[in-house]
Amino acid sequence: MDNTESVDAQSLAERVGVCMMDKSPVIHHWGVELLTIEPGSVTMRMTIREDMANLHRQCHGGVLFTMADACFGFASNSYNERTVAASCDIRFLKPAEIDDVITAHSVEVWKRGRSGLYDVTLTNQDGEKIAIIRA
Amino acid sequence: MDNTESVDAQSLAERVGVCMMDKSPVIHHWGVELLTIEPGSVTMRMTIREDMANLHRQCHGGVLFTMADACFGFASNSYNERTVAASCDIRFLKPAEIDDVITAHSVEVWKRGRSGLYDVTLTNQDGEKIAIIRA
Amino acid sequence: MDNTESVDAQSLAERVGVCMMDKSPVIHHWGVELLTIEPGSVTMRMTIREDMANLHRQCHGGVLFTMADACFGFASNSYNERTVAASCDIRFLKPAEIDDVITAHSVEVWKRGRSGLYDVTLTNQDGEKIAIIRA
Amino acid sequence: MDNTESVDAQSLAERVGVCMMDKSPVIHHWGVELLTIEPGSVTMRMTIREDMANLHRQCHGGVLFTMADACFGFASNSYNERTVAASCDIRFLKPAEIDDVITAHSVEVWKRGRSGLYDVTLTNQDGEKIAIIRA
Repeated sequence: MDNTESVDAQSLAERVGVCMMDKSPVIHHWGVELLTIEPGSVTMRMTIREDMANLHRQCHGGVLFTMADACFGFASNSYNERTVAASCDIRFLKPAEIDDVITAHSVEVWKRGRSGLYDVTLTNQDGEKIAIIRA
Repeated sequence: MDNTESVDAQSLAERVGVCMMDKSPVIHHWGVELLTIEPGSVTMRMTIREDMANLHRQCHGGVLFTMADACFGFASNSYNERTVAASCDIRFLKPAEIDDVITAHSVEVWKRGRSGLYDVTLTNQDGEKIAIIRA
Repeated sequence: MDNTESVDAQSLAERVGVCMMDKSPVIHHWGVELLTIEPGSVTMRMTIREDMANLHRQCHGGVLFTMADACFGFASNSYNERTVAASCDIRFLKPAEIDDVITAHSVEVWKRGRSGLYDVTLTNQDGEKIAIIRA
Repeated sequence: MDNTESVDAQSLAERVGVCMMDKSPVIHHWGVELLTIEPGSVTMRMTIREDMANLHRQCHGGVLFTMADACFGFASNSYNERTVAASCDIRFLKPAEIDDVITAHSVEVWKRGRSGLYDVTLTNQDGEKIAIIRA
């Protein structure tokens, strides 16, 4: 990819990101940012705030799921469309705490026709895995 | 249970509910209400708002997960405490739309020592199942 | 249901059971018996043998999965037909030991068109839960 | 790694494989072979036989689960020991047919203390994914 194409792809990703924020007040509310997007692979970032956490300063599992779900949806090009009986399996590996910067990265595991399987990994600023979701 | 005990239990549930709202800005933000609470069994209610939905007026999966997760956490008496490697499996069965009134009900499937397995079912105002979570 | 219908249903269940054993050498190999069958609900039985177990006399997880999977397949009337990307979640709750008599019972949790969700519970002769599968 | 170490590692893997077959009649029964073993990563092979399949010549899901479970157990160095409430999620992607040669490969996704998360992928002789298990 030469420099011009690279700039175009980044520009596209940013436009899609803006569009996504406009369409999803939930994603917007939690301050999720789109960093990179390629076919089947998306990276997002979110900083844990006081209003996402409990008294122990740990982020609510629902907020982490929301971020992972958005990352998956974006990767599968089906954001906001959900197949009936779609199943997501999330494993919480380590608590995310206030001021942690969480990165979500999705990878396409398998794809055939309109069906697909994606793994999303959430890591903190120290590279520790926070949660893994399969969708 | 006589009437006095029944009133006491309801009164306790309400106090716990208020406490929970104070402790969890996420639950408070989505307007989740605690209806009933018994050992291992909890019922909650939430009305789908515009700011939970996308352009197709369908509720974000992350908001439904958040409600189910709160219901589970409450039922397991471990709200806001999360076991390492805890796993949740959610299945989306039908979209929830704006103005839908969603009820979450948790049931204890299995318990031994500090380990337990809970099923949470989300249903809409017509009694249709929206999502099922096992945690 | 009068006595004649009851006898007929039992007779049908037995014929289906024989047919299933003929069609599935795997089920036959592990000695799984069909006890009762109703629409969406099936009960099976299996006794843990030496050749299903390890040195610690505990049954292999794969054998328990096989039994649960057969019970689910029978309940969904789709035995030996498998949807692409079908997902099964199994939780092992207590080891099954040699000479334990395991009962599998399936319940239909949700159904729409050709999609469905079933829970299968495996219990031992003391009524203790051995494993739960959602498929 | 020089040639001598490489030979030793292979020799060890083979001894462990023989030991495993002796200890697990279930694995032995299905003809699962151990190909390679490294810390956290194991490769196995199995050929689909008539007695693993149904009339449509497709392998029973329970046999595929058994192979994946053995691969996981070996990778986690805990074969035949099972944690209470351990959860396995399997997704069936494509049927395996008689005479297919299935390879199982496990990868360690996350590890802390005695807890760990492993992915096992089953592929056929054409490199197509048959099933994915997370345990």
